Amino acid sequence: MNWAIWNNIFAMAAVTAFAVTAVLAIREDRSDRRMDLFAALVFGLSTAIGGGTARDVILDVPVFWAQDLNYVWVALAASAIAFYGTRIFEHRHMNNLMLYLDGFGAALFGVQAAGKVWDLGFGLPVAPVILGILTAIGGGLIRDLLAGRTNLLMKPELYAIPVLIGTSIFTLSLAYAPEDRNIWAVISIVLAFGLRAATIRWHWTVPEFLRLPHR
Amino acid sequence: MNWAIWNNIFAMAAVTAFAVTAVLAIREDRSDRRMDLFAALVFGLSTAIGGGTARDVILDVPVFWAQDLNYVWVALAASAIAFYGTRIFEHRHMNNLMLYLDGFGAALFGVQAAGKVWDLGFGLPVAPVILGILTAIGGGLIRDLLAGRTNLLMKPELYAIPVLIGTSIFTLSLAYAPEDRNIWAVISIVLAFGLRAATIRWHWTVPEFLRLPHR
Amino acid sequence: MNWAIWNNIFAMAAVTAFAVTAVLAIREDRSDRRMDLFAALVFGLSTAIGGGTARDVILDVPVFWAQDLNYVWVALAASAIAFYGTRIFEHRHMNNLMLYLDGFGAALFGVQAAGKVWDLGFGLPVAPVILGILTAIGGGLIRDLLAGRTNLLMKPELYAIPVLIGTSIFTLSLAYAPEDRNIWAVISIVLAFGLRAATIRWHWTVPEFLRLPHR
Repeated sequence: MNWAIWNNIFAMAAVTAFAVTAVLAIREDRSDRRMDLFAALVFGLSTAIGGGTARDVILDVPVFWAQDLNYVWVALAASAIAFYGTRIFEHRHMNNLMLYLDGFGAALFGVQAAGKVWDLGFGLPVAPVILGILTAIGGGLIRDLLAGRTNLLMKPELYAIPVLIGTSIFTLSLAYAPEDRNIWAVISIVLAFGLRAATIRWHWTVPEFLRLPHR
Repeated sequence: MNWAIWNNIFAMAAVTAFAVTAVLAIREDRSDRRMDLFAALVFGLSTAIGGGTARDVILDVPVFWAQDLNYVWVALAASAIAFYGTRIFEHRHMNNLMLYLDGFGAALFGVQAAGKVWDLGFGLPVAPVILGILTAIGGGLIRDLLAGRTNLLMKPELYAIPVLIGTSIFTLSLAYAPEDRNIWAVISIVLAFGLRAATIRWHWTVPEFLRLPHR
Repeated sequence: MNWAIWNNIFAMAAVTAFAVTAVLAIREDRSDRRMDLFAALVFGLSTAIGGGTARDVILDVPVFWAQDLNYVWVALAASAIAFYGTRIFEHRHMNNLMLYLDGFGAALFGVQAAGKVWDLGFGLPVAPVILGILTAIGGGLIRDLLAGRTNLLMKPELYAIPVLIGTSIFTLSLAYAPEDRNIWAVISIVLAFGLRAATIRWHWTVPEFLRLPHR
């Protein structure tokens, strides 16, 4: 199999994880409220495709999911399965798998987005990093806003910073070693995902010198 | 009178209802706070045109209200009237009229949007339904976010599901019976509105099998 | 020096103030939470460029900061300085300077935006005012949504109304005295800023007849 097919498989796995973790997160936070299937589909879909939609609107290019509706179908199916199959996803191993896949998705989509922005020559050299982060975390921010949850910007957990590191490295590589693009894409994704995975595994938080002290 | 004129009359009535219900809803929820006229205009306008604006930005077509400023003027006037004439709109009959008109507006704008997306050949066959729903409920979501209210996705009331049904039927008709477009548009709007009206009248909620159980 | 250079200096001072006040505001409201540097950069940047980004997306023109990355660099630098130098900006004089600069920025960006919309002939005559206000307050609304703060629309303080007055006067001048554009731009900005400055200095609020009474 070639790069494009692998990329597609990974992207669909990541979309699944985005949608599933969205439905699970809202269910967990809002155990006092009752969510219906429709709301689950809206949350799953907007989490999965919201960030990339905002990126494409800012870039003024056709929205990615209108070109490849698999993103939409997979996100909707995953949301429905997560909604009815909450018990399956609450098993520790399945829950962990989804958390890691979600972190992998953020790394993958962020680095992919940085490449897309670079190829368009849009706001170089800083826009690939900014829009990479927007792509990776935008959907999650929309979900948290709509659900009234505290979003990741207000939490000490490492979520976006790995994406910042991955997209920065990839953008640097596009500037200084464009001939090794595929290798650097893999390195950047692995690094961003590795940092996130370590965070999930060992509950890493943002280092002290990057945090404001309590008053 | 022809279709276009009727359509315009209905659209302006719906915009009025969107703006009026926005101002009334915030006033009701926030009786402890004092809203000023400027905020009422912002809430009324963004509720009335927010969803359609998001749709047009995603479609990458000119924003509808810039082509026909009547949407803006009517929304601003309705917001101001609702702000100063709260007592009028708090009368049971007037309040009910606005609630039903708001449901009608969601049905009308949802189905219209589905038609617009279909004609552009954008993300068929699923984007007409998704962007139809976004058009119908997007403004209300923006209003609730800005006002710090619990939005409709977190409530058991039937609001968006009638729009989902109406836009789905209309989209199917465009695929399988394009020659009867006008008839199916009317059927879809009547059905979506009828479901919403029944919800307002008899306090229908989402059926049990579409809802997550309490834990 | 000519107009363009002065304009650039003023714009960068305003972007600095937007970013700094964003970081300070969140720090103040959320003294129980710990913000990290990354979140400060996101808040500072989105406050500084969020409103203009929304405007350009609605206008369907290239996003302004991708054409002139100084907006991004200045906003990021100002956010980082505000994050680590909170003590400097908490001194009364420095804090006041930032508050006044922020008000000046809202006036400047609002009037500039009205001019840009007018030149594009977009939704005349009302869109220049609407998008001028969106440009001036959009970033602050995004910041407050993401931080879970009560936004300016729900507060009695005069913030957006000065911008409304400034953009309205400037738009009228473009219609009736286009030959004196630069003079009217200065008058509109001075007036909007003066009103805001008076609000900061004497704690002005929205006049009684523009506010809803308590129930």
